[in-house]
Amino acid sequence: MNKERLLKQIEFIVEIDKLKRVLRQNVVIGTKSQEDDAQHSWHLAVMAIILVEHAAQKLDILKVIKMVLIHDLVEIDAGDTFCYDEKGYEDKAQRENRAAQRLFNILPQDQAREIWQLWQEFEAMETAEARFAACLDRIQPLILNYHTQGHTWQKPGVNSEKVLKRNGVLKDNAPLLWEYAKEIIEKSIEKGILRP
Amino acid sequence: MNKERLLKQIEFIVEIDKLKRVLRQNVVIGTKSQEDDAQHSWHLAVMAIILVEHAAQKLDILKVIKMVLIHDLVEIDAGDTFCYDEKGYEDKAQRENRAAQRLFNILPQDQAREIWQLWQEFEAMETAEARFAACLDRIQPLILNYHTQGHTWQKPGVNSEKVLKRNGVLKDNAPLLWEYAKEIIEKSIEKGILRP
Repeated sequence: MNKERLLKQIEFIVEIDKLKRVLRQNVVIGTKSQEDDAQHSWHLAVMAIILVEHAAQKLDILKVIKMVLIHDLVEIDAGDTFCYDEKGYEDKAQRENRAAQRLFNILPQDQAREIWQLWQEFEAMETAEARFAACLDRIQPLILNYHTQGHTWQKPGVNSEKVLKRNGVLKDNAPLLWEYAKEIIEKSIEKGILRP
Repeated sequence: MNKERLLKQIEFIVEIDKLKRVLRQNVVIGTKSQEDDAQHSWHLAVMAIILVEHAAQKLDILKVIKMVLIHDLVEIDAGDTFCYDEKGYEDKAQRENRAAQRLFNILPQDQAREIWQLWQEFEAMETAEARFAACLDRIQPLILNYHTQGHTWQKPGVNSEKVLKRNGVLKDNAPLLWEYAKEIIEKSIEKGILRP
């Protein structure tokens, strides 16, 4: 029984290795290589540890870390949807729900349920933990873009107004990070790496 | 003051982006691309969540996750030392200590100390958390190797005896994972992807 359970867990661990192959829009600083979802998720988890003191509300840091570690797993099937791609967003939820069904259910039932709930909570952005996780998920690409000559911001349709709006979740949930984000956006416009 | 503190934290977050460029010996399943340390650390952290029930001792899972997230940061300066490279191990501790000094001290002092202590605890392998983290750090490459035709095991000097010895920490600290590891090693010998 325990062995059977372990084999399901190992199957999941092997399956999610694919997250290392899901490419994002950002590049890794100092390279021309696109960042992948596993690298991104690792970066968010370390950021959660380092930046937790800036969260506006008291929160369960273990839950935040778990959330950011698993938040992009659905992209193994659904792919990365560029955050400024309005068309891609139309069927994003449907694609990702299907992916969650397949992927999480590789696990023993109780764990499938735990991961499903964490992911749903992250997506709903209603709890303090989910909102702080969202803050990290917004500010990390901002920091990468600032240090890679606004790599992603050069794509058609991106401008400072959209970037500011996307980072809006920081305002009430991590006020100091929000001040920092606004500064970075201002500086990026000045540098000519982000359209006003 | 808070702002100054945040700027140190951001500097650290930018600096550790380099972990995404530190290549390991393993390849990602289904590819010819070497895994990097950020991907590896992410994989260990998710494995910690999924496999914690197999730890022989009760432990603080948050601490295990923090440990595996930061355990390879020193390789940003010190590089990845192949686990079966005896020569590389001679000055590993010295190189990594120097790296820890430089990297962790980018952070505000209290956080530098926290990360330093976590890393030292991981390296010492004396607590239940550190030993379980070590278990994950051993079994993850085993699983990857098994699913990539023993990629790393083809290097000179690697054989089943050394792989078994390297995974020895599993025996007392995660008995069911140890049974699984032994099975995988046996199967790998049978398949001809690991020298007996």
